[in-house]
Parts: sequence; structure tokens; C-alpha cells
Amino acid sequence: MRLIHSVSELRAALAGQRETAFVPTMGNLHAGHIALVEQARASGHPVVASIFVNPLQFGAGEDFQRYPRTLPADCEQLEAAGCDIVFAPDMHEMVPEPQTFQVQPPLACELCGAFRPGHFSGVATVVLKLFNMVQPAVAVFGKKDYQQLFILKGLVRQFNLPIRILEAETTRAADGLALSSRNGYLSAAQREEAPRLVRLLREAAARIGAGERDYAGIEQAASNDLAAHDWQVDYIAVRSQATLLAPSPDTRDLVILAAARLGTTRLIDNIEVCVG
Amino acid sequence: MRLIHSVSELRAALAGQRETAFVPTMGNLHAGHIALVEQARASGHPVVASIFVNPLQFGAGEDFQRYPRTLPADCEQLEAAGCDIVFAPDMHEMVPEPQTFQVQPPLACELCGAFRPGHFSGVATVVLKLFNMVQPAVAVFGKKDYQQLFILKGLVRQFNLPIRILEAETTRAADGLALSSRNGYLSAAQREEAPRLVRLLREAAARIGAGERDYAGIEQAASNDLAAHDWQVDYIAVRSQATLLAPSPDTRDLVILAAARLGTTRLIDNIEVCVG
Repeated sequence: MRLIHSVSELRAALAGQRETAFVPTMGNLHAGHIALVEQARASGHPVVASIFVNPLQFGAGEDFQRYPRTLPADCEQLEAAGCDIVFAPDMHEMVPEPQTFQVQPPLACELCGAFRPGHFSGVATVVLKLFNMVQPAVAVFGKKDYQQLFILKGLVRQFNLPIRILEAETTRAADGLALSSRNGYLSAAQREEAPRLVRLLREAAARIGAGERDYAGIEQAASNDLAAHDWQVDYIAVRSQATLLAPSPDTRDLVILAAARLGTTRLIDNIEVCVG
Repeated sequence: MRLIHSVSELRAALAGQRETAFVPTMGNLHAGHIALVEQARASGHPVVASIFVNPLQFGAGEDFQRYPRTLPADCEQLEAAGCDIVFAPDMHEMVPEPQTFQVQPPLACELCGAFRPGHFSGVATVVLKLFNMVQPAVAVFGKKDYQQLFILKGLVRQFNLPIRILEAETTRAADGLALSSRNGYLSAAQREEAPRLVRLLREAAARIGAGERDYAGIEQAASNDLAAHDWQVDYIAVRSQATLLAPSPDTRDLVILAAARLGTTRLIDNIEVCVG
């Protein structure tokens, strides 16, 4: 496995070997990331993983400064998972100029975007750069970051990038909690409380699966339950999978998305549910 | 020469022949466009020209509806100039979805951008799509659209596109008027008046070349002269070539840019000047 820091070195390493599978990450890897790498390997292509803590996707007061940087440990995990190239660009490679282009995605102010202004623009801008640097045939993203995945599928489609997006199921702890780098911020008590989020999403999905159509009521019930257990709820929302907008009465493929905070730690999760 | 309307057909035609030279246009071609095609041919690559009247770069009340569509005549000229592929995408190929991503360039509200809100975002968004569709090795743009060229060079650089931008000098009529599709909107009397713009830019460049450094005074004199001859002046601006911002006293590579209207027809031009 090679560790590469510059675009020029990356281009040289990839010359004559353009059909790669790409896994962009911010590092601090856990089993969820490794599942993405395994899915990339299963595509049959050599695997490139990137590690870059993207400043453009953090808002003022968010955790950019304290976000864990763990490159040596990350590289060990990636090598064990069969990754071929780790691309860990320096800041000046990714954000070389004070006046930068920005990609503005649709739905960037919905759901998580309503609580993290500029977040999805920062994600799309840097992922587009990474796509152009790596020029992969395939890129793998997890469904845990459902809105991010939705926006990046749109990015690839609307900008006609010749990249196939693979979607990876969310990797969960035994108690159901979606794996996330930010879980490391939780105290022991918070960690014990945290799986309530996925439990409520599963309950909500079961109610919809059983025929309930009062989505606002379902959202409110889950939100109340979280608030009663000291969560700060950003949103619980039943949406259409196809548009991420509010469903019409005949929308069949739904997703329930949630974002809520335990103390200062913001957790997100989602569950898909299809109605007959 | 092949005329292609869809991305899928384009990709098939380009398969195994990725090193092309690309000339994006809005059609209604004149000798200035043909000079771009000739510069593309001189690169040694097969030449792809696109023809697409980009709605995203026209503002409300601008001339999108009346912009001349002259595809058969354009194709004749392109074939005679040695173009290999004409790509004339349908609207639904370029703007397939109601909710679209937008590329926001830096300097998009300066100079022409101050008078055409959204223009450079529309240009950058569609050129990025075209770049991804064609994936050329080389792309040719004219210096007549100086700010556009500046922004697109930034687009390629900041998004790490593996494309080399070639800059083409402005093609001019015998009396100096920069060739433009919009010259066709001018009445006979306006056409006679129009070369005043380049004459004033040349005078301004000569004054700077002779040592004058009162850029504001030079801008004002040219602007007054235009206004005295019934032009509506959007701006006359001495700027740094490197940044397109106002020059500092020791900036050596300058460009004087102008935009002004004769009746309803907006003309732009510019001239570079380097001081000792």
C-alpha cells in the first residue's frame, strides 16, 4: 500500500491504471469505513482511499479543530483491509487559493443543511475535487450519511461524471448504534443512551409498515421521546427516497431521517421503509 | 464531421480516443470562433466543438430568446474548418432536472458579473458539464471574453481538471471592432460607432504605456467619451491580469476591460498592457 500526499504523485501512481474504486473519508476510521473499503475491493478494481478533514464542510463552532487526526492508525487499518493507495492531501492541495469556487447543491438547506449552513456545499466542492484528482470508475459512500449520498449521486449525475456510485449499508454496533467517528465524543452514559435514536427510527418504520400514514404524528412522537431523554432534536423527518422532499400520500419508497444531539455530540441516522 | 446530440452517442464516438481539443460555443459562428477551431486543430488533437445556447448564463430580460440559432450554417463552417465532431446537446441533456447544482465562481459579481447576476455561475456550471461530457485534453477560449477566460482557468485549476486551456487572441474586423455574435444586433449607424470602444481602449493603453498611472482618471476619460456618443457604460476598469482585481501601484501586467451598450446591444472588449 502506498501513502501519497500530492496530486502530482497520485497522477503518476495512477497513470495507465485509471479504473479504480474510491473511498473518500475524513480518517479516524472505524469498522464502517472498512466495510466501504471491502465493498470497493469487491468491485474488482484497485482501491484508493482518501483521508482529508475537509474544513469547508465544518461550520463556525463545529468540531473541525478537535476532529481526530489518526493517520498512522488509519493506514494500518486500510492496509489490512487491502487498500492499494491512501491519498492524504495537504491542505494546500485541496484549498490552494483564498478565493475558491463553491459547488451549491440542491437541497443544501434542507434537513442537516438547515442546521449546518454551508456543510453540503463544502462536501460537494471537496468531493468534486477528489473525484477529479482520482478519476475513479467507482466510488463508495455509506447510507448512514443519507443526504450526503443523495447529493453526491446528484453531483455525479448532473455534472456527467463517468463514476458509478456504490451505496453501502450502515454498519452498526451490537446495540444498533450506527458507527460514527463522532461516537468517540460520547461519555459512557451518553453511549448507553445513544441507541435510542435507532430504536425510535425502527419503531417509526414499523408503524408506517403497519399502515400508519400520519407522518407528522410519527415524527412528533419520536421527537418527544428523544427530548424526554435529554436529547436536543434537530429533526426527525419522513421523506421520499427519490427526492428527499416531503412525501405525497402515494409515495411508496420512504426514508426516515434523524439528527439529534446528546450534549455537544450530534448524531445522525436513518432507516428506509417501503410501503405497499 | 459528425453531428451528435446526446451524451451517450458522444461517449461512444470518443471511446478509445480521449485526447481531444474542445471548443465550446453558443453557435451563430463567426471568424472569431473559426480561429478558435484552428487553434484547436493546431494542437494536433481531433477537434470537438459544442453548440449550446446556455440558458443558465442569460439573466432575466437578456437576449436568450432572440439569440440566433443557426445550426446548419454553423456546421458548414465547422466542417470547412476541419472540426471532427459537433456536439449540439439538447436542453434536457444539459439541464435535465428542475433542481440543479450551481458552480459559484470567485469574482462572479465583479466587472461583467456586477451587471449580469448569475451569468458566470451559469457559464461555469455548463462548461464544467461540457468538460465532463467531452473530457478533452485541451480546451480553447478567446480573450475577448476575458473575465470568462479568467474564471474558467480558475475552474480547471481549482477543480483539478486534467485539461490544458489555450487562450486565443481576439479576432477583429478591419476597423478594430472585436467580432461578436451580438454585433449582428447593431444598426448600420451603431456598427459605424461601435469601434469607438476599441479605439478608446487602445488610447488608454497607450497612456499607461507612456507612463500615466492615474488609472481612475483614464477610466473616467474613456467612460465620458463613450457617454458623449450615446453609449450606456457598464464599466471601464484597469485591473491586474493575475487577479482581475484593482492593481496595486507596482502591478505590471494590466488589462483594461470595458462593457458598454449601444441601444440594447451590449458590447465588451479589453486590451492587455504591461508596464515597465
